[in-house]
Amino acid sequence: MTELYDDERLDYATADKTMKIIQSPSVFSFSLDAILLANFTYVPIKRGRILDLGTGNGIIPLLLSRRTHATITAVDIQPRLISMAKRNVEMNDLQEQIAVVEGDLKDLQPDIGHSNYDVVTCNPPYFSTPAKTELNQNEHLTIARHEVRCTLEDVVKACKLHVKPGGKVSVVHRPGRLVDIISLFRTYKLEPKRLRFVYPKKGREANMLLIEAIRDGQADLKILPPLYIYHEDGSYTDEAEAIIHG
Amino acid sequence: MTELYDDERLDYATADKTMKIIQSPSVFSFSLDAILLANFTYVPIKRGRILDLGTGNGIIPLLLSRRTHATITAVDIQPRLISMAKRNVEMNDLQEQIAVVEGDLKDLQPDIGHSNYDVVTCNPPYFSTPAKTELNQNEHLTIARHEVRCTLEDVVKACKLHVKPGGKVSVVHRPGRLVDIISLFRTYKLEPKRLRFVYPKKGREANMLLIEAIRDGQADLKILPPLYIYHEDGSYTDEAEAIIHG
Repeated sequence: MTELYDDERLDYATADKTMKIIQSPSVFSFSLDAILLANFTYVPIKRGRILDLGTGNGIIPLLLSRRTHATITAVDIQPRLISMAKRNVEMNDLQEQIAVVEGDLKDLQPDIGHSNYDVVTCNPPYFSTPAKTELNQNEHLTIARHEVRCTLEDVVKACKLHVKPGGKVSVVHRPGRLVDIISLFRTYKLEPKRLRFVYPKKGREANMLLIEAIRDGQADLKILPPLYIYHEDGSYTDEAEAIIHG
Repeated sequence: MTELYDDERLDYATADKTMKIIQSPSVFSFSLDAILLANFTYVPIKRGRILDLGTGNGIIPLLLSRRTHATITAVDIQPRLISMAKRNVEMNDLQEQIAVVEGDLKDLQPDIGHSNYDVVTCNPPYFSTPAKTELNQNEHLTIARHEVRCTLEDVVKACKLHVKPGGKVSVVHRPGRLVDIISLFRTYKLEPKRLRFVYPKKGREANMLLIEAIRDGQADLKILPPLYIYHEDGSYTDEAEAIIHG
C-alpha cells in the first residue's frame, strides 16, 4: 500500500507500464531531460556503484535500475522529494538496489564516500537567476530549477569529489551553459568525452545537451550524432520514440 | 600575366568560375574547412576591418571579399604562401581590398594594430603532435597542419589581441579540440556565441566545428543546427551544395 499526499498522483515511469512513479505537478514531475540522461548514461551492467545527485522523485535511479545490477545512491536536498523518492523505490521493490539519502551535495555526509562511484549522474538546476515571482510561488520547483541551493560549480565539484578516478560523470543541461560546464569540468579534472546535442526538430537550435566526462581522463571529445525529438508534424522521431517508449 | 612555380596550378576558387586561385598540392591547397569557415563567418557588409590569421594562399580573404566591402588583412608566416596569396590577390584585382602581410601571429608588427579588427578569422593547424615522417617530408604542409610554429593558445591569444572589444572571432577546428578551444576562449575573454558542428553524413560523429566568439561578450551560446555534408549515396546535401557551389 503506497500513501499519496493530496497533491501527488501515480504515473507510469516507463511506457511498458512495469514501473510506477509518484509525481506531483506542484512539487516534482520528471521531464524528458531525465529520460534522455538515463538513456545516455553509461552504466556498468553487473556490479559497481552509481550516485545520482539531485534525484528529485528518483526517476533516474529507477530508470537506470532496469539496465544495471550496480547499487545506486540517490541524493536530494528536499525532504519532500526524499519522501517521494523513498516511496517510489519501495513501491517498485528496489530497496536492495537503490538507497535514498537526504543531503546537500555541497556537504554530503562521509558515508556517501569520496572517490567511491563508477558513475555519477546529475540533472541539475538549469537557471542561474530565479525569477522573483517563481521564487515566491513555489519553493520546491524553484530549488529544482534554479541555482538557489547550489551553483553549477557546486554540482561539478560534487561530481568530481564522489566519482572514482577513471569513473564517469554524466550531466544534462542547456546549450547556453556549455561554456560554463566545459570550463568547470576542466577545472575539476573531469575531461569531456562524449557530447550530444538534442534538437527539438530539424532546422532548430539545440535546446538540450548531454555530456559525459571521465575523471582524470585524456582529452578526446567525440560529438555524437544529433538527437532530434520531433518530426515536422510533431510526432516523435524513431530514435526519440525508442528512448521514451522503448 | 600571372607567374606560376613548377609545382603550382591555377584552379577556380568558386564554382561560378569568377575567381581564380593558385594552389599547390605540395605547398598549400584550400580545403572544405576554409570554405565552410568563410561561409560561417559574420562580415560587416559596407565597411570595417577583417584579419585572417594563417591565410595560406588567401582563400578565406578571397571568398569573404565577395560578401563585404570591408578591408581584409591576410597574414601568414610562410614566405612561399605569402607569395601565392599576393599573386592570388593581384590576379583577382583585389589589391584595394586585401593586404597580404608576412608575419608570425605570435608577434605581429605594430602596424597590424591591436584591438583593431571587427572580425578575425583563423583556420589554424589542427594537430598538436606532428608525425615525424610528415615533419621530414614536407615543411610547408607540416607548418599549416601541425602546431609547430604556433600552438592553439598562440592562435587564441592573437585573435584576442587584434579583435576590437565587441568584435567577432571565427575559427574552424576539430571536435576533439573543443574543450581546449572553449577553455582558451574563456581565458582570453572571447565568449563563444555560435557553435556549429559539421557531420560527414547522418549517423556519424561530427568531424569539424565552426565557432564564433565575441570579445568581452556575455555568456549566451547557441548551438546551430548540424551541417551535413553528404547524403548516404555520397552526393552533397542541398545545404553543402549551396555553400560549396552556390
